[in-house]
Amino acid sequence: MRNFILKNENAIYYECGYSCDNVIFLQLGNDKIFITDARYTIEAKAATKGTLVIQSSNIIEETIKILNKNKVKKIIYDANDFSYALYLKIASKVKTEFKNKEKFSQLKRMIKSDEEILLLKKAAKIGLEGFTQLAKYIRSKGENKDERALYFKAYEKMTQKALYNTSFAPIIGINANAAKPHALPTKTKLQKGDLLLVDAGIKYKRYCSDRTSTSHVDFENFNFGRDQKFTKKKHQKIYDIVLKAQKKAISKIRVGDKASDVDNYTRSVITKAGYGKQYIHSTGHGVGLDIHEFPFIHGSSEIIIEENMVFTIEPGIYFPGEFGVRIEDTVCIENGRAVII
Amino acid sequence: MRNFILKNENAIYYECGYSCDNVIFLQLGNDKIFITDARYTIEAKAATKGTLVIQSSNIIEETIKILNKNKVKKIIYDANDFSYALYLKIASKVKTEFKNKEKFSQLKRMIKSDEEILLLKKAAKIGLEGFTQLAKYIRSKGENKDERALYFKAYEKMTQKALYNTSFAPIIGINANAAKPHALPTKTKLQKGDLLLVDAGIKYKRYCSDRTSTSHVDFENFNFGRDQKFTKKKHQKIYDIVLKAQKKAISKIRVGDKASDVDNYTRSVITKAGYGKQYIHSTGHGVGLDIHEFPFIHGSSEIIIEENMVFTIEPGIYFPGEFGVRIEDTVCIENGRAVII
Repeated sequence: MRNFILKNENAIYYECGYSCDNVIFLQLGNDKIFITDARYTIEAKAATKGTLVIQSSNIIEETIKILNKNKVKKIIYDANDFSYALYLKIASKVKTEFKNKEKFSQLKRMIKSDEEILLLKKAAKIGLEGFTQLAKYIRSKGENKDERALYFKAYEKMTQKALYNTSFAPIIGINANAAKPHALPTKTKLQKGDLLLVDAGIKYKRYCSDRTSTSHVDFENFNFGRDQKFTKKKHQKIYDIVLKAQKKAISKIRVGDKASDVDNYTRSVITKAGYGKQYIHSTGHGVGLDIHEFPFIHGSSEIIIEENMVFTIEPGIYFPGEFGVRIEDTVCIENGRAVII
Repeated sequence: MRNFILKNENAIYYECGYSCDNVIFLQLGNDKIFITDARYTIEAKAATKGTLVIQSSNIIEETIKILNKNKVKKIIYDANDFSYALYLKIASKVKTEFKNKEKFSQLKRMIKSDEEILLLKKAAKIGLEGFTQLAKYIRSKGENKDERALYFKAYEKMTQKALYNTSFAPIIGINANAAKPHALPTKTKLQKGDLLLVDAGIKYKRYCSDRTSTSHVDFENFNFGRDQKFTKKKHQKIYDIVLKAQKKAISKIRVGDKASDVDNYTRSVITKAGYGKQYIHSTGHGVGLDIHEFPFIHGSSEIIIEENMVFTIEPGIYFPGEFGVRIEDTVCIENGRAVII
């Protein structure tokens, strides 16, 4: 087994089942070494398996000592994972050759184990429950609430009052604000007939959920389901195109496709309908310990879709200053096809 | 004026009044250059003054182009601010000499302008209002609520329902959990006679607040003031020592002191009382755009206290498995002395 060194929390969690904000992880042959300070050693020892936990008030010096003591000749690292300062501090004090292999941890995590898929399904289920509870709130008290108030309620419902962490800050966009893929909440108030876009997710045992709904606002029947009836014709027309693109992609995906094929499944529908220029982002991204990870689903990706990959399908059409529609589900490749989790 | 390059969001905000999550900032002589992508250029142009905003879908290549076009000979950077991968991508493609000057932005930001102090005072005021509203909630509905529920309420009250961002995740510790300086919320329920530690802060226009209270729990009179009456004698004894240490430091601090002197002002009181070993952390840290910044107030810091510095004074005594007390205020050096903001 090759030697490697990690600093990224999710990458370390993947290797040994625990992580914290002050750790260096070493894999030396078959040995896993978790170097951290006194705040974390008790938890680290309890949570990891087959991992040597070393307590040190200076984890950099401890790392240098271990590399030198073991006469490690070569070690793989990811230069994105290390600040240049940290790299210099370690690499300049050891005889070990540091070999940069960008994204090696993310690539390793691209195909999920069955156990990880169970965790991702559980995260998706909790995330969906958040949407359901938020819809219930909007039906009873949503009228005239502004995006900021709805943002707070989205946080409350998605996290079940902070029982879970969010996987990213919820996006709440009414009408024109739905046209900004990364909108911050404003004082715009929710009214009947509006279009509301909500993009939100949580973490379950560090695994992320991610889902987007675009809904017609109507305080009797408001919901985050895929079957939406808008009062404005243009809303309905665009919604139907985006939904068609999303459904088509999900039904067409097969093991062996390239990620760029998958991108084309959504993009061709939207382009054919005449809105290719309004589809300003890629089709999706992998979901796991990181909210954005491999496989990235875009037009120039050569990655081959394989069993047990988990990623989003999230086409969108945006009219700046007017409105936007995005529909996003997370899918898992099971028995060669994409299944919404 | 010297040339420098920045990647850190707060460092960039300090230079030009705006920042975002995809930017490289260059100071070349008197020219400020903000390189970002299409999502942010409109806001960047509106928010910055005297800064050239350049839009690019590849901010790294744009940076290389600008450095080469301007034949920049030497540029200062902070190796903590750049991943090794990013450093290599830029530095290997230019003739510019990259000169590492660690923490140069943080050191520059150590003494606040009068305008920054107004923002920090406003942040502190909003933060204190959060504590007041949380106390009101605890008096009326706090009994039997667990730490998780109180964590959610702390988030709600501190941020005024997400109108503001937190400056860090609130810490809510009942009894034994108050003994962990970085406790995560548990299912422990709040009861009369408990000791409750709350450490929380918000951001106002990106400037942070930071404050900790340790309180006696009593649902008639619960408050986060400094005058606390505990039913348990040991709680009271320890509380009085920590409060004495904090008050002494705040009254003794003078311009010209070393940060290590300030650390000693709190530590000597606690050590004399026999609890030096239970005071397991340093006295405080600077507060500004970063929640932890210069000046760090610890026993080996040679930094000299100057007018317009803003930092915390937060002594604590901890008995693992039993309870802990920490009292924290943020102070500003005004007219040569420390004033709680």
